[in-house]
Amino acid sequence: MIITISREYGAGGHSIGKKVAEALGIEIYDKDIVRETVASSGLEEQLVKKEEEERSTAENIWRIISSYSGPTYNDTQDEIHELQKAIILKFAKKGPCVVIGRCADVILKEAGFETLNVFIYADDVHCAMRASEMNDMKNATELKKLMDKKNASRQAYYHHYTGKKWGDARNYDLALNSGTLGYDQCVKMIVDAYNNAQ
Amino acid sequence: MIITISREYGAGGHSIGKKVAEALGIEIYDKDIVRETVASSGLEEQLVKKEEEERSTAENIWRIISSYSGPTYNDTQDEIHELQKAIILKFAKKGPCVVIGRCADVILKEAGFETLNVFIYADDVHCAMRASEMNDMKNATELKKLMDKKNASRQAYYHHYTGKKWGDARNYDLALNSGTLGYDQCVKMIVDAYNNAQ
Repeated sequence: MIITISREYGAGGHSIGKKVAEALGIEIYDKDIVRETVASSGLEEQLVKKEEEERSTAENIWRIISSYSGPTYNDTQDEIHELQKAIILKFAKKGPCVVIGRCADVILKEAGFETLNVFIYADDVHCAMRASEMNDMKNATELKKLMDKKNASRQAYYHHYTGKKWGDARNYDLALNSGTLGYDQCVKMIVDAYNNAQ
Repeated sequence: MIITISREYGAGGHSIGKKVAEALGIEIYDKDIVRETVASSGLEEQLVKKEEEERSTAENIWRIISSYSGPTYNDTQDEIHELQKAIILKFAKKGPCVVIGRCADVILKEAGFETLNVFIYADDVHCAMRASEMNDMKNATELKKLMDKKNASRQAYYHHYTGKKWGDARNYDLALNSGTLGYDQCVKMIVDAYNNAQ
């Protein structure tokens, strides 16, 4: 069984995923996926990161308002997504693991893998404290802008490649508020659900 | 701390809530709220149930499409909601309990209570099996109609009285897929989260 973690920016999804992987003694894949994509495609890392994460907020807002789900992504973006998909499937075939982000929940389920799909989120205050720490950023306006941009980007990416609504509880097996429950409790619950499903 | 449970029709939210209340030795409130509303208001039980649960699908579809959140409910419905709100608050003041549905998550949070807000959902197959059993109904078309109607009604009710999107993970502390996790695992996780928060 593969654990996938989707997460709001600053909600601690990566830290929680890492602790889950440690507790279960299994692999975790996140930025490594990007790196391997780059290595196997010859594209520059900067390009991949830019295409993936930093589409303009204006474009995202327009997409959300118009609910347009057609092919607005360019060929490079689609190519990167296809490469990442192949790499995620390759990793999953190796055995149980944790995969962070990148629509892994839908990719793996469609490919017939047993998955435990988790969504991690928190209120703005918790996310802001964490994002401020990660980016060493104290300016609230800048921080709010960064958080909104990251979340809008993840939401648009997920919607574009899966046709589903990011953050709708019904896409996941388990959706946890890391702000109110605490990281350790989230880790415990995911490990518990994983062990129970074996 | 009060546990509130919102749930899709057929996802077993009531059964899970009941087991949670038993495990923790605390009260559970669901249909009792309706009954007490009726008793203290003098309204007929049939009327309350009708007003609450069975608004026409056409009306709900219109409301969802237009995203209109204005005062479309009539005075009787608003009165019933206000009565239920007062009764939920009265119950909550007595001590820890489980409250099923009726926007209790938002009502109690706004009143300053500590809450653990849970959403229980499941895929259509699990919900259909459960709903079929509850209603002794074998006709798939009828069953699908009933499930859609119940869910549309709950969604519209929640949106009307809270302004929030029913089923969006971010409204809850914990959102659990009872179909994939199983009822017992859901009970365990809610009890766990409750004990951890004390």
